[in-house]
Amino acid sequence: MVFEIVERDLMGRIGRIKTKSGVIETPALLPVVNPLKLTIPPNILQANFKVNAIITNAYILKKNCYDEVVLKGVHRFLDFNGPVMTDSGAYQLLVYGEVDTTPEEIVRFQELINSDICVFLDVPTGSGVSYKIARETVEETIRRGRECLEMKSKEDILWVGPIQGGEFIDLVEESARRMGQLPFDIYAIGSPTKFLEQYNYSKIVEMITAAKNNLPLDKPVHLFGAGHPMTLALAVALGCDIFDSASYALYAEGDRYITPNGTVRLSELKDTVCTCPVCSKYNPIEIIQMEKEMRVKLLAEHNLHVILNEINNIKYSIREGRLWEHLEYDSRSHPALYDAFKLLKNYQDYLEKGTPTSKKRALLWLSDETVNRPEVKRHLARLIEVEVPWRPKILILVPESKNKPFNKSKLHNQLLNIILAREDVLKSVQIAVLSKMFGLIPVEIEEYYPLSQYLTPSGISDTQLRLIKEALIQFINRNCFKKIILLNDEAQYGSALVEFLLNIREENRILEVDVFQLNRSNYITREDLVRLKTTLTAGVEKC
Amino acid sequence: MVFEIVERDLMGRIGRIKTKSGVIETPALLPVVNPLKLTIPPNILQANFKVNAIITNAYILKKNCYDEVVLKGVHRFLDFNGPVMTDSGAYQLLVYGEVDTTPEEIVRFQELINSDICVFLDVPTGSGVSYKIARETVEETIRRGRECLEMKSKEDILWVGPIQGGEFIDLVEESARRMGQLPFDIYAIGSPTKFLEQYNYSKIVEMITAAKNNLPLDKPVHLFGAGHPMTLALAVALGCDIFDSASYALYAEGDRYITPNGTVRLSELKDTVCTCPVCSKYNPIEIIQMEKEMRVKLLAEHNLHVILNEINNIKYSIREGRLWEHLEYDSRSHPALYDAFKLLKNYQDYLEKGTPTSKKRALLWLSDETVNRPEVKRHLARLIEVEVPWRPKILILVPESKNKPFNKSKLHNQLLNIILAREDVLKSVQIAVLSKMFGLIPVEIEEYYPLSQYLTPSGISDTQLRLIKEALIQFINRNCFKKIILLNDEAQYGSALVEFLLNIREENRILEVDVFQLNRSNYITREDLVRLKTTLTAGVEKC
Repeated sequence: MVFEIVERDLMGRIGRIKTKSGVIETPALLPVVNPLKLTIPPNILQANFKVNAIITNAYILKKNCYDEVVLKGVHRFLDFNGPVMTDSGAYQLLVYGEVDTTPEEIVRFQELINSDICVFLDVPTGSGVSYKIARETVEETIRRGRECLEMKSKEDILWVGPIQGGEFIDLVEESARRMGQLPFDIYAIGSPTKFLEQYNYSKIVEMITAAKNNLPLDKPVHLFGAGHPMTLALAVALGCDIFDSASYALYAEGDRYITPNGTVRLSELKDTVCTCPVCSKYNPIEIIQMEKEMRVKLLAEHNLHVILNEINNIKYSIREGRLWEHLEYDSRSHPALYDAFKLLKNYQDYLEKGTPTSKKRALLWLSDETVNRPEVKRHLARLIEVEVPWRPKILILVPESKNKPFNKSKLHNQLLNIILAREDVLKSVQIAVLSKMFGLIPVEIEEYYPLSQYLTPSGISDTQLRLIKEALIQFINRNCFKKIILLNDEAQYGSALVEFLLNIREENRILEVDVFQLNRSNYITREDLVRLKTTLTAGVEKC
Repeated sequence: MVFEIVERDLMGRIGRIKTKSGVIETPALLPVVNPLKLTIPPNILQANFKVNAIITNAYILKKNCYDEVVLKGVHRFLDFNGPVMTDSGAYQLLVYGEVDTTPEEIVRFQELINSDICVFLDVPTGSGVSYKIARETVEETIRRGRECLEMKSKEDILWVGPIQGGEFIDLVEESARRMGQLPFDIYAIGSPTKFLEQYNYSKIVEMITAAKNNLPLDKPVHLFGAGHPMTLALAVALGCDIFDSASYALYAEGDRYITPNGTVRLSELKDTVCTCPVCSKYNPIEIIQMEKEMRVKLLAEHNLHVILNEINNIKYSIREGRLWEHLEYDSRSHPALYDAFKLLKNYQDYLEKGTPTSKKRALLWLSDETVNRPEVKRHLARLIEVEVPWRPKILILVPESKNKPFNKSKLHNQLLNIILAREDVLKSVQIAVLSKMFGLIPVEIEEYYPLSQYLTPSGISDTQLRLIKEALIQFINRNCFKKIILLNDEAQYGSALVEFLLNIREENRILEVDVFQLNRSNYITREDLVRLKTTLTAGVEKC
């Protein structure tokens, strides 16, 4: 198997792509090496940046250094001792409108120079083209893809199948579906660059999900030209595994300094805002005064450090099961990223597929968008699915305890004392926790991850209250409670839940709603305990 | 003047504290140097970390190396060529309950060793003490403060006045008010450590604002023991200027690795998640296998890089006028920080004081909490304050244009054509933009910063809609419109504003509400233009 998935979170994954020159751990960022201008030489990329795979351009190699690179092979030519991916000249086709080679020549050439991962000469859709033209790029790319698969003669090279369609989501879907049926080792999504430049990250979300939903999920996916740290986590979370970046060097040429959340002109910086080896040594004012060549070299190094570090942080978030938190945090760096993040609520089913049912860490409620995370949806889905098997007639609603789970709380003990006293009561009662993360949690399942492993801010938001109400309605609909007892945490909920329960009472054929106000430490007072016992016994007999 | 403020944002500032050994640029983090254990030697702090001021402990120096440090002076003793601050042993008093010196001895000793910034032997409140004890620490600290000021004999030393009170906010206020009347050069807020450890950042917000509101605002403020990068921006935004950090070394001793958003055990890290010189050279697995001494040294270096980098990033945010965005972003790293951030809505007036009226950059709407930023409050306050001088009778409400300001939009041109045609119409009309950041903006002022310099996500949130309605009510109350014409962007607002205007119509004695639906590109159709012209002319005559 070429691609092995090691860890997952959302649709992101840590994986291993096996090539004849070594393993690439994904998510991976392959720095683009321009063979005509080595801003950072490949052996330095390997030694100082721990880069273990690079991407270069076969078309440029073929046009400018044919003899030498054929003689030496691309690895020795570039002095890089690890996987080398070669792009085909499609980018040049996009920019210049034509290239001085044929699809066949480029396939043969890539085999000849012994590249590890190769792209045939696809026809990028680009942006701003008509639907008709876009469709043609899809068709022609697929035709060339088939041709490439027939033509290729080496078994130890991984071939990439590019997806076209650009802004036309239906074409992306079709392109992915048809390309996905061809036996490529890796698929690639083309043409996001324009949308990235326009901060149209929502379009990127649509493009990636359109492609991924129509591709085999066990194959790695490359997202072309999307190497800025700002959007990497989003792309990984949606299922992209490989990225390339020319920006680290191109931005450096323009004195642009990449930060985790954006790009600034070097001249705008007074303070060092980065810990990388370059920035630890020189401050921005020193760098700007250097000779161009040195300045570009240092800036490129800084830029690459920042990009690679974001890849490492994404890996860390996947391992920790905190990729959603990573996205939620990132989304507060720019309104456009926030827009794209908010869109994820439309892809909950998709994102849930990859989200593990068990994780190391607590889930964090970081804003009302947390309600869209797949774990919440997953819990709500189960809540509707399962009817409580002993068919209890009485539902006791309790607030979240300060320390979870609720079954370790004093209030739970108070309840148990009453409930365990009579078997008929025990059999008639369902206790459920009102949860600011999951809406409602029957106590029997609260120790299953993550139902007691989460942190929420103090207070309650409208969204959390809505979540609780929705979960309540669904749980009540699925079961046949005749009586509901609310142990109300008034400081938290006020009378909101009381009113809500009274409102839904009739249509759910509930005979009684009984409310007990808890004291400030969320205990039942002694008098209320007596009353609760009475109401429970009466309830069991009546219902 | 000892302290000069160079730039401001919120209540944060970039400043310069002049000491006899050089200037300290604030916000500044002073690494704590333990003279008995130099994890990172002071000269290395200066050379490799660009640290220009350090803090050490006078009590430890006095107890352990009296002769040598008196002979050499603290600078030569520590081999540090820049400002040295000395703490007094109050921390030892807090931890061990007693110290082997007197307030007088410690004042004399600090003068003797020629320290630049000195703290007299205050009595820290700590946490978990009774109100009575806490009050005693306040009283005794003030008494010793007075004594110190009488006793001190050198003019070239800056003395620090510590504020006590701990969790008792009224005591913090009193302590600050009375200490603030004594002529110290710097004030210091004590005892936040326990609350920081408990993630009780809301308490920190209360403590700092309680102190700052009672201190002279032109003096620098030190926040003791709060050197973790997670909360630095919040503390700076609330007006703290100086921090100390022993944690960089103490955490290293415990194999704890500081990140911008938290602390993790080194053993939990598989990937490098940092670009600092240490992490660029070694990965966590390599570091964990090293000998203890080397491991602690490297971890301390890493930790310090991360902390100092956050200080630099805070400075950058202040210069860019993006400190609010910095906080909003940070707040999504942990629910406890989000809690503290949400509290800022209670301190809008305070935060507004320091917020410049003009900035370089656009404001970003990053979540519904953005509504609490001082610029929004400031605008709303002015909106209520000022009655439109020409007393227009007709209010035309227009949606935000895609590119701001609105007066450059096609819709504005369409309106002008009609309005300019008749002088009586011109004199009767007020155009105001419905703004997702500021609620409502009269077109006459929309080019004043920041009313056209902001970015919001697509769509409209409940909070934004509420903001618009509130601004509308206040603007309508302040003026005497007889007719309101809404040019409705239906895709954005649906019928929400139509209903709202119809509802408030009677109580505001408005004769007519007229609605025109805009087309998808936010233009008025040709037919509607004719109708608008008629309704305007009729309106002018009627009102």
